[in-house]
Amino acid sequence: MASAYDKLLTLSKAITLMSSVEGLLDWDQETYMPKDAIEIRSLQIELLASLVHRQRTSKAFAKALSALIDIETGEVNDDRLTSAQIAALREWRRDFQKAVKLPNVFVKQFAKTISTACHVWKTAKEHNDFKAFAPHLEKVVSLSRKKADILGFKEHPYDALLDLYEPEMKASILTPLFSKLKLPLTQLLKDINVKTPFFEDFLYRHCPRHKQLEFSHKILHKMGFHPSTSRLDTSAHPFCNGLHPKDTRMTTKVHPENIMSCIGAVLHEGGHGLYNMNLNLEHYGSPLCQQVSLGIDESQSRWWETLIGQSYFFWQYFFPLLQEEFPEQFGGIPLEDFHRAINAVKPGFIRIEADEVTYNLHIIVRFELEKALIEGSLKVKDIPDAWNDKMREYLGVSPEFDGQGCLQDIHWSLGFIGYFPTYTLGNLYSVQFFTTFEKVHPNWKEHISQGSLDFIRDWLKENIHKYGRQYTPSELCQKVTGKSLSEEPYVHYLKKKYSALYHLTAG
Amino acid sequence: MASAYDKLLTLSKAITLMSSVEGLLDWDQETYMPKDAIEIRSLQIELLASLVHRQRTSKAFAKALSALIDIETGEVNDDRLTSAQIAALREWRRDFQKAVKLPNVFVKQFAKTISTACHVWKTAKEHNDFKAFAPHLEKVVSLSRKKADILGFKEHPYDALLDLYEPEMKASILTPLFSKLKLPLTQLLKDINVKTPFFEDFLYRHCPRHKQLEFSHKILHKMGFHPSTSRLDTSAHPFCNGLHPKDTRMTTKVHPENIMSCIGAVLHEGGHGLYNMNLNLEHYGSPLCQQVSLGIDESQSRWWETLIGQSYFFWQYFFPLLQEEFPEQFGGIPLEDFHRAINAVKPGFIRIEADEVTYNLHIIVRFELEKALIEGSLKVKDIPDAWNDKMREYLGVSPEFDGQGCLQDIHWSLGFIGYFPTYTLGNLYSVQFFTTFEKVHPNWKEHISQGSLDFIRDWLKENIHKYGRQYTPSELCQKVTGKSLSEEPYVHYLKKKYSALYHLTAG
Repeated sequence: MASAYDKLLTLSKAITLMSSVEGLLDWDQETYMPKDAIEIRSLQIELLASLVHRQRTSKAFAKALSALIDIETGEVNDDRLTSAQIAALREWRRDFQKAVKLPNVFVKQFAKTISTACHVWKTAKEHNDFKAFAPHLEKVVSLSRKKADILGFKEHPYDALLDLYEPEMKASILTPLFSKLKLPLTQLLKDINVKTPFFEDFLYRHCPRHKQLEFSHKILHKMGFHPSTSRLDTSAHPFCNGLHPKDTRMTTKVHPENIMSCIGAVLHEGGHGLYNMNLNLEHYGSPLCQQVSLGIDESQSRWWETLIGQSYFFWQYFFPLLQEEFPEQFGGIPLEDFHRAINAVKPGFIRIEADEVTYNLHIIVRFELEKALIEGSLKVKDIPDAWNDKMREYLGVSPEFDGQGCLQDIHWSLGFIGYFPTYTLGNLYSVQFFTTFEKVHPNWKEHISQGSLDFIRDWLKENIHKYGRQYTPSELCQKVTGKSLSEEPYVHYLKKKYSALYHLTAG
Repeated sequence: MASAYDKLLTLSKAITLMSSVEGLLDWDQETYMPKDAIEIRSLQIELLASLVHRQRTSKAFAKALSALIDIETGEVNDDRLTSAQIAALREWRRDFQKAVKLPNVFVKQFAKTISTACHVWKTAKEHNDFKAFAPHLEKVVSLSRKKADILGFKEHPYDALLDLYEPEMKASILTPLFSKLKLPLTQLLKDINVKTPFFEDFLYRHCPRHKQLEFSHKILHKMGFHPSTSRLDTSAHPFCNGLHPKDTRMTTKVHPENIMSCIGAVLHEGGHGLYNMNLNLEHYGSPLCQQVSLGIDESQSRWWETLIGQSYFFWQYFFPLLQEEFPEQFGGIPLEDFHRAINAVKPGFIRIEADEVTYNLHIIVRFELEKALIEGSLKVKDIPDAWNDKMREYLGVSPEFDGQGCLQDIHWSLGFIGYFPTYTLGNLYSVQFFTTFEKVHPNWKEHISQGSLDFIRDWLKENIHKYGRQYTPSELCQKVTGKSLSEEPYVHYLKKKYSALYHLTAG
């Protein structure tokens, strides 16, 4: 006899399957799709999105869910369920409540709008043409405000959007957290700015595309990826699309004159990829086999990109290999110089090229702007000026062209408003998790320097990945680190690392 | 007000969209999918296929169709419809009747049987073990006979299966047609067999993969393809998947030691691709924007692969380019020698490697066997002997192992019985169409030799592609050529071409 839980899981599996097909449509659109197919692709995605939405809100699903949990109160009706199953029900209920609020017509309209907006954004970015993108972004913002109203909120409309990416996060938590972060970051930046910049010209020597990709595959292999369950392709903006734990699709972008941009993207998307790969297949189709939040997901990518991938110890192993592959570019460069160069702090225009010190300032710019867009205190047409003003204030630099400014990121074109803060949350989580990891693996530096990365992947799997959505982000943070999320470990980490690198005196 | 026709078209468009998503899943599976994702991919495809089937047989669809055409009698109820719309209704009705006849239980049983049969076939082929495959093929044949009974037929059960691939084709047409073809082909083969074989060793010189693909793209460009609406990738078996007229996905396979295998596949799939690309987008979602039959579709691929791509005139333009790209492999080879080599006739065991003269004899072997299987006059266990006898009789060669004989093709294991004849129909259609084309473009040889192919593409579009399924295959043949399908033009073409190539005296 199929239990009530199994019945619900079967329905949920069909939805997960359908979503994964939508994922393939997205992946293909960004990698291999002939560009004139964009119109039909939008219709295909719209159709799939509406089918997924219909299934998630169907009477059959509601009935199967209600048999186990009271949808109004959240009370679980079956005392034979495990605590993991009860957690799954809590998350199914959360998703269901969100899904039933959004009418099918609205979901379709949103999907169609962002498909076109994303397409227009690409050309607009290329031509620094914010005006071409503005009407599409206006539609996205207007639909997002409508979305916040439909989803509902207690304090701030932005909370309704935040919650889609980081469950239970609120503007009232973020605003003070980001304020406490902004001060030490701007101060650290000022201290570094008066120091002599590191020599780093060798990072921008020409490295052929195919050799960059070959080296990328070596890193992914060491991280634990295998071609039978994952891919690396190229796209305008790197991403990771986990179609299934056995089908992880990552992309990078390759600039022949900037190999570290490619390697950084590979480590970053690789971090997301491992999370996807290590989800618990036993629970496929349930929230227990899904990433818990974008913030936690980002903690995984930043973990690999910065904490591991910009560490001295990682490059003790990989730099000799890099020198072997690119003798003309890196032969004769001391590891110390290379390590300093890849950690050079330089306020710049581009978020994804930003160093650890300035990165979160980029995010804070976006957070403040999009919060203002949603509450209506900022108009789309005023974004370029507002953007440039804040960049000048926090980072001391301001872009000349919008392609390097407010048009640089794909996110808003995809309707991802409320998403950017998860990048900074990811940074904070990553360092807070790392403090626990260091206690368990005090010899981590030595292991990494010998090219061993498996023990890191295993620790992440056992402590974070395998739980899926069993714990909320804040519960997970508490479980792993014994404390709730704070900016302190991150600020401590940055100060310690960059004081050493730049020989700063204690402030 | 949406007309009844528009209502039907809207429903049909949603089905077409969903099918195109299934097409992407297929394409991805054969090109880029990590191999361990096969299990989840099968579930995704099964889900989409069942959704498509449900939509095609839904009450809503039946109602929309019945509003315009009597499903029993085929009588059209609306006299404001154009002749093209009436033709579309005829084809919608044809598809609907087929779809509703097969019970869900039967479709599932069939799917399960061929899934196992295909799996067993792969190993059986590798080990030349027909006995291992026989019980599974017996099930496929038995279910195919049942399928024919369910679908219904007037003269021969094989007709019901044929009709799935070539509408309105019948065993009573094919049997005499193929008989009339068999005699001159075997005679031509005998005449050629006594001649000195052509020198063709230079065709098997090493050509790097990426350079083969570069040259392939040059050919596709000249044929009229553009990267904004089409792609060329590689796969184990070349195919063309038309996801939409603006999204044509072709593949080829590259053997470094056999460049003509790659070029032949590119021309072949390019022929299918142009048909897809030139369908009338105005009618997207209706049968008027679909290929009319596998035979006509194959006529397009063979047109480009053989009539154009193996002609002297095509290579007058392309051979110097080939020599330029591959000077070590083809420099110093006279065009005449190259042209003879790519048209060399050599009876062999393998259909997909066969030349123009022997190709149809391979098909006739399969047609005679599968017709006998369906009518019950041949038992599965007797296939190997029957196969080898026929090969010896028609081609003068007989394989030692079944892997090179009756186990070579995947088709039967997939339940594709009635499919093989469309390959020969494609050859016959292509030459019969060409006789009309030659009259309209008497200077075609000169144009091609100067690298102009656009006029060919335009002629095919105007005379064949743009009609979709407006005419049945036999109506289309009559419309284009003024005659019904006959083996005569094909036999005449082969005799003329190969008499000249092999200096045969008139028989």
